[in-house]
Amino acid sequence: MQERIQRMLEGDESASPAWRWVGLTLLEAEPGRTLLEMAATEQMTNHQGVCHGGFIAMLADSAMGSALATVLPEGERHMSFDLKLSFMRPVQIGQSVRATGTVVHHGRRTAVGECRLEVGGDLVGTASASFIVYLPEKTES
Amino acid sequence: MQERIQRMLEGDESASPAWRWVGLTLLEAEPGRTLLEMAATEQMTNHQGVCHGGFIAMLADSAMGSALATVLPEGERHMSFDLKLSFMRPVQIGQSVRATGTVVHHGRRTAVGECRLEVGGDLVGTASASFIVYLPEKTES
Amino acid sequence: MQERIQRMLEGDESASPAWRWVGLTLLEAEPGRTLLEMAATEQMTNHQGVCHGGFIAMLADSAMGSALATVLPEGERHMSFDLKLSFMRPVQIGQSVRATGTVVHHGRRTAVGECRLEVGGDLVGTASASFIVYLPEKTES
Amino acid sequence: MQERIQRMLEGDESASPAWRWVGLTLLEAEPGRTLLEMAATEQMTNHQGVCHGGFIAMLADSAMGSALATVLPEGERHMSFDLKLSFMRPVQIGQSVRATGTVVHHGRRTAVGECRLEVGGDLVGTASASFIVYLPEKTES
Repeated sequence: MQERIQRMLEGDESASPAWRWVGLTLLEAEPGRTLLEMAATEQMTNHQGVCHGGFIAMLADSAMGSALATVLPEGERHMSFDLKLSFMRPVQIGQSVRATGTVVHHGRRTAVGECRLEVGGDLVGTASASFIVYLPEKTES
Repeated sequence: MQERIQRMLEGDESASPAWRWVGLTLLEAEPGRTLLEMAATEQMTNHQGVCHGGFIAMLADSAMGSALATVLPEGERHMSFDLKLSFMRPVQIGQSVRATGTVVHHGRRTAVGECRLEVGGDLVGTASASFIVYLPEKTES
Repeated sequence: MQERIQRMLEGDESASPAWRWVGLTLLEAEPGRTLLEMAATEQMTNHQGVCHGGFIAMLADSAMGSALATVLPEGERHMSFDLKLSFMRPVQIGQSVRATGTVVHHGRRTAVGECRLEVGGDLVGTASASFIVYLPEKTES
Repeated sequence: MQERIQRMLEGDESASPAWRWVGLTLLEAEPGRTLLEMAATEQMTNHQGVCHGGFIAMLADSAMGSALATVLPEGERHMSFDLKLSFMRPVQIGQSVRATGTVVHHGRRTAVGECRLEVGGDLVGTASASFIVYLPEKTES
């Protein structure tokens, strides 16, 4: 597992500005799997009075991206290419959403991740993503 | 077109807290189509140094949801059920992303929207979404 | 579980014309999960010499639809509304593909299914689908 | 445009076994766009009495793949990596479905296509797909 992920887990490395702004926390990480948490705050309220789905998408994308980082070598770059989400239940303001990201496939050029989104143990959404992977020795874009 | 959308366009009605927090602006609206803009700010920087895809997802979801609101009667509720995105190029911090949301289908129970995401006229992503629609007379969830 | 599914499993009810034409076989069924098999035949060869992805899509859609039928009452109708597939490895002609369909959510109006596609125990693809559900007492379209 | 596509259009080169089996016909092709047709036959009937969505998926995938072939050099290989479909209306047996595939992006390693599916001018579905592209000079898998 990349040292960067281990350091983030131990609080010795700060997350990206995006994660900090939205309040994403890495709770667990092991090769091929991460667990993230995000609190749905007042600022995330959409027109219908619940958490805007965009923040759920951000959480899911982050969970899958960080899960991928646990199985790729330091120095890699990856970019989510496709992101697909199913929203089953609205997330209420004040609730905490937990996202489990897992890697279901990773090859030399591509990878696929999945995500389960839960509030208090209840499934609120699922997601999957495809990634383009650039391993350290392949530096062309 | 719902008066709410018209008022938002004229600046007489504030957007949702989520839109304001992330900085989404409604630039244009007509029946079946809206144009939104979002500036990629420093706070949106991901681990790779570019705009986190989650904010792009949020912009796309918002564009399609607001496009749908232009063709549904006041009092309706809709919820995005599926959200699918393709990211073609990373969005750099400092760039402005424009999202055109269109309605490709709307029935009594469901609707489908599409979105094109551009930076300076170049396509950076596409999206589609399915919505569950609750028309005013149908109040069951 | 619907009696129709049980009868199909026991060979007492024939599958749909589409299943028979393409050669889909229901191997297992229990509430919320089905296992289907399809042999990739010469007729399914695409321009690149491997099994055309469309047949894999058909298998996945069928697995999720039949899984949904195991948890809905007899007389229901459902229609796949969204179908999303990730193809990880090509399927070679002559191989048998097994698809496990599971129901991850089902409500009064919608349902969500997932699918894993395997050849000889190796993952070749994943899929998810959203369904619109019409329960027997709700006959409007 | 690849000569292979031109020859298919003129009937001088037969389509793949998969296209022939299911009855896909290439009606038009120009750089970045193709138009295909498929008749929904009795054999495609699903449990609900309409055309099985899998054949629609196959048609859409084929339309986008052939559209991609119109803009890539002879000798390339491409593989659909992600396939996403929205079904708006069921296709009745006896109807002809026309699919317009377009290329919305193509780079050195990836491409994105879109598809519109129509019956008699009415939209019955939309699709998008991501492709991994292997250009002639890049032979690694």
